[in-house]
Amino acid sequence: MRLRLDLAYDGAAFHGWATQPGLRTVQGEIEAAIAMVLRLKDAVTLTVAGRTDTGVHARAQVAHVDLDEVSPVVLTRRLQRVLPDDISIREVTEAPEGFDARFSAIERRYIYRLCDTTPDPLTRGTVVTHRRTLDVDAMNAASAHLLGEHDFASFCKKREGATTIRELRELTSVRIGGRIETTVRADAFCHSMVRSLMGALVAVGEQRHDAVWAGDILATATRDPRVKVMPAHGLTLEEVVYPPDHLLAARVAESRRRRDEPR
Amino acid sequence: MRLRLDLAYDGAAFHGWATQPGLRTVQGEIEAAIAMVLRLKDAVTLTVAGRTDTGVHARAQVAHVDLDEVSPVVLTRRLQRVLPDDISIREVTEAPEGFDARFSAIERRYIYRLCDTTPDPLTRGTVVTHRRTLDVDAMNAASAHLLGEHDFASFCKKREGATTIRELRELTSVRIGGRIETTVRADAFCHSMVRSLMGALVAVGEQRHDAVWAGDILATATRDPRVKVMPAHGLTLEEVVYPPDHLLAARVAESRRRRDEPR
Repeated sequence: MRLRLDLAYDGAAFHGWATQPGLRTVQGEIEAAIAMVLRLKDAVTLTVAGRTDTGVHARAQVAHVDLDEVSPVVLTRRLQRVLPDDISIREVTEAPEGFDARFSAIERRYIYRLCDTTPDPLTRGTVVTHRRTLDVDAMNAASAHLLGEHDFASFCKKREGATTIRELRELTSVRIGGRIETTVRADAFCHSMVRSLMGALVAVGEQRHDAVWAGDILATATRDPRVKVMPAHGLTLEEVVYPPDHLLAARVAESRRRRDEPR
Repeated sequence: MRLRLDLAYDGAAFHGWATQPGLRTVQGEIEAAIAMVLRLKDAVTLTVAGRTDTGVHARAQVAHVDLDEVSPVVLTRRLQRVLPDDISIREVTEAPEGFDARFSAIERRYIYRLCDTTPDPLTRGTVVTHRRTLDVDAMNAASAHLLGEHDFASFCKKREGATTIRELRELTSVRIGGRIETTVRADAFCHSMVRSLMGALVAVGEQRHDAVWAGDILATATRDPRVKVMPAHGLTLEEVVYPPDHLLAARVAESRRRRDEPR
């Protein structure tokens, strides 16, 4: 049976999502916990909606795992008991027919948090302190040049054979108190894409470049060293969106055909 | 000249506010930083509005310090540069005539944060996970029996010669998402008072006692072992209120006359 896991984590003490030998990762911790609480002899493998990098957080991550018959309620309770307090399993449920945490997702939503005033020590784990004042209107003007379906190679670490074409649906910055929150939505993201987009917005927000410059960078479609990759701890995966159940399988086929590497 | 300091801190790594030999405290860190950046030969002493215990946080703490002539703007900048990232100096300003961070304050506001659903790992430093579901309406019904001016000895660690009479002005619990936030306002608080009040509300919220029980505990005016002192890390000092400048000195006289020990 296929199980869907809804979970959250504080990325600070993890070397990202993906299992790496000898390193503490979210995937590694959860896979080990599942094998332990179910006393499995064989290792299990999780598939995730958004593979987050070292230091990136998730408030609503989704993964799936295929297991022999097991009670989702019992597994939820046991995992909650054994997992460390920087991972929280919200719920384990039986996945609907055709569900794939990665390939049936139709949208990922992240928020990047910056503080350009006096930092709040109580949120310093999830908000990046920025020493210069940022012009939020300028940031939003730059966003307008980035929205839509494009080749985002300028903002991605390229992988051989993987497309960097993505549909950027939202890139909105708002000032909330002394903080700037940027909401970023796309069908999927390539490696380091959100943090690079933020690097471009911050350069415009500091008025080092005008808004059009962000579009010029995009148009080059090659990684540009002038675009800084912003720190990981300001980034949180906030939501993964799936289609209605009867469209799950069709979405998987479409995603696989595009052979993209969603993040 | 007397300077007012507005500051915030994450209480996790401090043995509370007050200087203690050999222990890391907020007061100790700031006093050492002031002496260092101003190259003072003598130690300085801070007076604080709300002396927080080990593990308690502050988002808007106020303190004062008396120094020889110094530029508040320069001191702000220098302190921001040298202090560790779990303390944030918002601003240093010249205090108005008659200002005393402790004795001229007329109100302190705290928020206590509890989560009785799946915990959010990203806020676990400031929100206490509670394993049983709480009835917020019952908690508010209990609050009604505690509001007003009373001897809060049942909820305080008694100190010889100090009154435990306080005016509790607000004790309101609201559910926000999966979390319960309780706002507590009083003229001042005695030692461990907010965390003990929360212990009483939680006992009622769990339906181990009815709302009237909280009033019965109050009426005994002696420390009751049935009232649990809730964990420190759920508590944050959110605001200290002062009267208009022309009433500052009168308020100091009144506070000293009452010989209370505001917290």
